[in-house]
Amino acid sequence: MALIVQKYGGTSMGSTERIKNVAKRVAKWKAAGHQVVVVPSAMSGETNRLLGLARELSSSPDSRELDMIASTGEQASSGLLAIALHQEGVQARSYTGWQVPIKTDSAFTKARITSIDHERIRAELDSGKVVIVTGFQGIDPDGNITTLGRGGSDTSAVAVAAAIKADECLIFTDVDGVYTTDPRVEPNARRLNVISFEEMLEMASLGSKVLQIRSVEFAGKYQVPLRVLSSLTPPELPVEQEMRSGTLITFEEDAQMEDAVVSGIAFTRDEGKITLLGVPDTPGVAYVILGKVAEANIDVDMIVQNQSVDGTTDFSFTVHRNDFEKVKGLIEKHVISAVGARQMIADEDVAKVSIVGIGMRSHAGIASLMFQTLAQENINIQMISTSEIKTSVVIADKYMELAVRALHKAFDLETPASAS
Amino acid sequence: MALIVQKYGGTSMGSTERIKNVAKRVAKWKAAGHQVVVVPSAMSGETNRLLGLARELSSSPDSRELDMIASTGEQASSGLLAIALHQEGVQARSYTGWQVPIKTDSAFTKARITSIDHERIRAELDSGKVVIVTGFQGIDPDGNITTLGRGGSDTSAVAVAAAIKADECLIFTDVDGVYTTDPRVEPNARRLNVISFEEMLEMASLGSKVLQIRSVEFAGKYQVPLRVLSSLTPPELPVEQEMRSGTLITFEEDAQMEDAVVSGIAFTRDEGKITLLGVPDTPGVAYVILGKVAEANIDVDMIVQNQSVDGTTDFSFTVHRNDFEKVKGLIEKHVISAVGARQMIADEDVAKVSIVGIGMRSHAGIASLMFQTLAQENINIQMISTSEIKTSVVIADKYMELAVRALHKAFDLETPASAS
Repeated sequence: MALIVQKYGGTSMGSTERIKNVAKRVAKWKAAGHQVVVVPSAMSGETNRLLGLARELSSSPDSRELDMIASTGEQASSGLLAIALHQEGVQARSYTGWQVPIKTDSAFTKARITSIDHERIRAELDSGKVVIVTGFQGIDPDGNITTLGRGGSDTSAVAVAAAIKADECLIFTDVDGVYTTDPRVEPNARRLNVISFEEMLEMASLGSKVLQIRSVEFAGKYQVPLRVLSSLTPPELPVEQEMRSGTLITFEEDAQMEDAVVSGIAFTRDEGKITLLGVPDTPGVAYVILGKVAEANIDVDMIVQNQSVDGTTDFSFTVHRNDFEKVKGLIEKHVISAVGARQMIADEDVAKVSIVGIGMRSHAGIASLMFQTLAQENINIQMISTSEIKTSVVIADKYMELAVRALHKAFDLETPASAS
Repeated sequence: MALIVQKYGGTSMGSTERIKNVAKRVAKWKAAGHQVVVVPSAMSGETNRLLGLARELSSSPDSRELDMIASTGEQASSGLLAIALHQEGVQARSYTGWQVPIKTDSAFTKARITSIDHERIRAELDSGKVVIVTGFQGIDPDGNITTLGRGGSDTSAVAVAAAIKADECLIFTDVDGVYTTDPRVEPNARRLNVISFEEMLEMASLGSKVLQIRSVEFAGKYQVPLRVLSSLTPPELPVEQEMRSGTLITFEEDAQMEDAVVSGIAFTRDEGKITLLGVPDTPGVAYVILGKVAEANIDVDMIVQNQSVDGTTDFSFTVHRNDFEKVKGLIEKHVISAVGARQMIADEDVAKVSIVGIGMRSHAGIASLMFQTLAQENINIQMISTSEIKTSVVIADKYMELAVRALHKAFDLETPASAS
């Protein structure tokens, strides 16, 4: 008998028919002798509908009240799932974030979980019930309802799993696992049976949308084994088969792992690039350039400064597209003349492509195979950034799909690696 | 400066446009120097939508989970109203039933309020805020969310008004007050400026739909002055004018009251009549007949037993139409032979028409004017029931509108009475 947390996304909860399917799936796990906690999202579209009403009333609605409103979506879907489970003959009870309670800080609309009181969940599990805990929400020290931000239900599920020391946290979603890259770009993309926590963290931060990055961080902090698997398979699929399906995100870097040096290719079009040409190569110039951006609370992703020639250098960095226009304005107004740069080039038609793999730690030459592959396709590399287990490049937007496919082939990701 | 509770029904909260109007109205009261607590219903249609989803999953959904689901409607509308008030430049904060807290028993879907902790509301009012409290819901001793049943937001508003000792509780609705009778039946029906609490209680229990009966009972228990008024007037209507509009339900039976002996005419088609003919007139026969009905938890309304003739009597009673078929079956199966009745007559084509007025206490001949009026119209009276301040008759369904109009005229309800 295992203790399992199962999270179901908004698509999986999108209609009463789908909620019935979730109930069938949960009932199957219960019948197989497992203890189950379920964390459902709101029915798909519901959170947007609620926030849309708030935005009809105000362009900058109060964030405490937004959480009051948005949290109702998960509360309703949790109650509905309890009723669907009763129909399957399963004892079940739903709990809101404040009823558990899931305690958070007071950062409305993007709160962080501080602690979970698991006594009530444990007692209900021990009495034979399936426990349903609303995703996405908690309660702050003053008794206000808080929400965890978009994708927060993943984080709720992982946090509950950590609190009750679950054997595994299953994230049921509309894809059947983590792929070597997005199958919509590379049809030969292959589902990974296992991926290390560190690789998953890089993939999530580099553009993979399968898991919300904060939930992966939380899983890392509390060593919660995560599995991403499909909620679109028939609910009657045998438990033994389902518990080995999808992708396991593991902390054990051992024989279980595939033997590949590169596990996946992530990509994003979410960033824009700003380059300052002819910046005098003097101490403190990077601070002058990026200090203004930091003051505006804007995150900078990649930063590249070249070797100086004739006492000047070119300085490039990328920011999220949502902040791009703002950053352009800041640089034009405050930075160009201050540092004496010759010119600014702002380019939104860029993409970032990254290879990720813990094998890169022990294998030399991985990055150069990446550069060689792109060169063969005549793709110019604009920026390079590396860390221990990933290499990212910025290239022209239009080459992104080509780059992903070429790298997927070059690193032989179509073929399962020897182990596992 | 007065302390005012304002309740807005689902129609008044039915869209973001209407919520903006509610906010304008509340802002106006605040600007006039009053302290205001607002109790909103869910947006119209929302509670039905949520319960409809539950019924798609189960024909007999668990009542605890129904409350979990249904309570979200008021939570969302309360948050939305807070945001709309902020847009009006008014400081406002919404509270759920459990946040106040409004404590109830554990009778899910029809819970009763046991106490309200008003400390939080008071503190927010004293800091200059408008306080929004979700209608319809509370929290039971085990920390579960409960709801008060249909129309429960009226009860929430009255209970909050009682707890904070409000000067008046304003029930904003889609009619502009309590009428002498339903204007759809009698176009000459007249709005009452004042009605006594006891009369309002009789009107509500006899078929008037303006106020939910439990909210009137609650107002009576805690002596909360209630006013029913329109939410469809322009929100800019001056406060001085609005605070005298609608109908005041008062506990002061003094000069304020109109001098009429009859204040209103209530009617309903919600009941069916069952008559047992030729019942032997022996002790205990009423118990045999109605005992079976009581065992099935069905409320009996009117009961009439005539003087016996030749040792037998006719026994009639009325029950709600929802229970009618069930009661017919019970009587046929268990009662007719047990009491030796000659025959059962079950008649659903009946209506109950009632005249209500505290003046009936001190004026003789009111009931006979009612009987005379109906006789002049050739309307046969099938059953009569009286109490201190009302007389009800059961007549054939088809005469109901005619009876209401004839009585309205006979008791001169078209003309305002002398006082007030």
